[in-house]
Amino acid sequence: MSPSVVTSALVSIEAIREAAARISGVAIKTPLIRAPFPGIVGKVWLKAESLQPIGSFKLRGAANRILQLTQEEIQRGVITFSSGNHAQGVAYAAREVGARAFIIMPSNAPAIKRAATLALGAEVVEVGVASSERLAKSEELVAKHGYIVIPPYDDEAIIAGQATCGLEIAEELPEVDLVLSPVSGGGLLSGVATAIRHLCPNALVVGVEPELAGDACESFRKGEIVTWPAELTSRTIADGLRTQSLGVRNFAHIQAFVDRIITVTEAEIRAAMRAIVATTRLVPEPSGAVTTAALLFHAHELPPYRNAVAILSGGNVAPEMLSEALLEHP
Amino acid sequence: MSPSVVTSALVSIEAIREAAARISGVAIKTPLIRAPFPGIVGKVWLKAESLQPIGSFKLRGAANRILQLTQEEIQRGVITFSSGNHAQGVAYAAREVGARAFIIMPSNAPAIKRAATLALGAEVVEVGVASSERLAKSEELVAKHGYIVIPPYDDEAIIAGQATCGLEIAEELPEVDLVLSPVSGGGLLSGVATAIRHLCPNALVVGVEPELAGDACESFRKGEIVTWPAELTSRTIADGLRTQSLGVRNFAHIQAFVDRIITVTEAEIRAAMRAIVATTRLVPEPSGAVTTAALLFHAHELPPYRNAVAILSGGNVAPEMLSEALLEHP
Repeated sequence: MSPSVVTSALVSIEAIREAAARISGVAIKTPLIRAPFPGIVGKVWLKAESLQPIGSFKLRGAANRILQLTQEEIQRGVITFSSGNHAQGVAYAAREVGARAFIIMPSNAPAIKRAATLALGAEVVEVGVASSERLAKSEELVAKHGYIVIPPYDDEAIIAGQATCGLEIAEELPEVDLVLSPVSGGGLLSGVATAIRHLCPNALVVGVEPELAGDACESFRKGEIVTWPAELTSRTIADGLRTQSLGVRNFAHIQAFVDRIITVTEAEIRAAMRAIVATTRLVPEPSGAVTTAALLFHAHELPPYRNAVAILSGGNVAPEMLSEALLEHP
Repeated sequence: MSPSVVTSALVSIEAIREAAARISGVAIKTPLIRAPFPGIVGKVWLKAESLQPIGSFKLRGAANRILQLTQEEIQRGVITFSSGNHAQGVAYAAREVGARAFIIMPSNAPAIKRAATLALGAEVVEVGVASSERLAKSEELVAKHGYIVIPPYDDEAIIAGQATCGLEIAEELPEVDLVLSPVSGGGLLSGVATAIRHLCPNALVVGVEPELAGDACESFRKGEIVTWPAELTSRTIADGLRTQSLGVRNFAHIQAFVDRIITVTEAEIRAAMRAIVATTRLVPEPSGAVTTAALLFHAHELPPYRNAVAILSGGNVAPEMLSEALLEHP
């Protein structure tokens, strides 16, 4: 792909503003909460995406995609495969427009996530644990019923939707000079980086991921998308960041607008979860705590900053896992 | 006190609006977070006072009082006795205006609260555990140094400050028809009830306290302030609600504007803490969870409602106590 082709495919600031207007009333404008972590010199805010109705930023992208469906498409229904926050985003947004939502989940999906998806009125389609089974079932149902696929990240409407998180940061804190976003498939990071580059051109955007699922960091360094096997990425407790590779569209935005990608350890993620609860009284899921882990433990890998925003991407954590992080004394 | 005298002493809506303008930039406007608890028919929002910079509403009242100090009073410094959230509110607001803050604490105060107060730049004055010692030390220091006493609740500026929480609820959700507030000394409940009565005259305001510290409920029923011994009120895990009696000014506002006061059990408080974390991803301290406990377990004692706001008054909870509530399976 030549650079000019990549540039022309990037999501525009106009598309991001349209997304913000579109999803208003479904997703909320989340607050920036000051987080005066002990020992940190610059000012830090957490962007509390954990306070979205489904407990994560995923509602932004799903709503932006689903609110663009035609009446005929709404009648057909939507489908996705995910056992995590994207499934809840799709279920929630589909309910808003009155579309049936089908969520393909592996039979070993956590009961709590299955229950949350069902509670939002979606229909769960169970398949075996191999990811190939999910794809096959999805293709079968789409061919048979004409359901509309809502992809989790590699999609322009999804990117523009997640980008509204960056738009809100830029509007509320124009003096921001560093934004940290978790990265997995790259939906949030690509969107946020696009918005920030347009609105706060002097601010740097850094992606953060678990060392145990460090494919995005490696891809960024090599300049091409690398894929890690699921056996590796599934080792991290950050269950929202186990995607095996970046999306193609996401990578193009990341290459254009992201300053660097760094990794954090599992112990750092748990320590960051404790620090977030103690300092801000917000509940982070492990994936939502990686950006704080970067600020607390990787200052030497970050550009200097005066006003940093760490995106707390979600708060859907099992009580047992939250307790474990809270009670650990390093 | 004759009724006319009581009425004339009530805080006005103008005083509340002035307080809101005064504390803007110190205390934050906290978000209303939708809380679709399973099994609840009406719509419920939590007013997330846990997201204030000190983790509780107490900053509102302390800031409203301290921001009215003269330059000469600021030079003298402020003093209070509290080992809890009020101490942190005073310390934070005093730092904003550049006043020294002296906090009298019993020698058995939790290390975590002592550390939090010191971290805000206040000076801790340690005394014995008897409450009489605290009062004696306060009077001694005031006589000697002229420090300004910042009372925790029985004060018009404190009531007007806490009332700004109610003002925000009324402005953001004018269709609210039920507001639940924790009650201990009565600062928050009296202020919020005053604001709501003026701005949403059809909404009812209900106070909630632990059954184990049920002095306000008994006072409300009898029509006069009753005092419970500290041995009784200290039994509840809701450490912010152990005050032995309502303040005189607070009781006057509560009699004028509050519909009823109900009590909740310790098990209900812990269950409400779990429900709040799971449904809203906010961290509640036990005192902040009593209003949710009332909605979840005492619907039969509440008026019917369509749009209820439960004030989540604070989120300062030891990790061990939060874990205990999270892991309990009733």
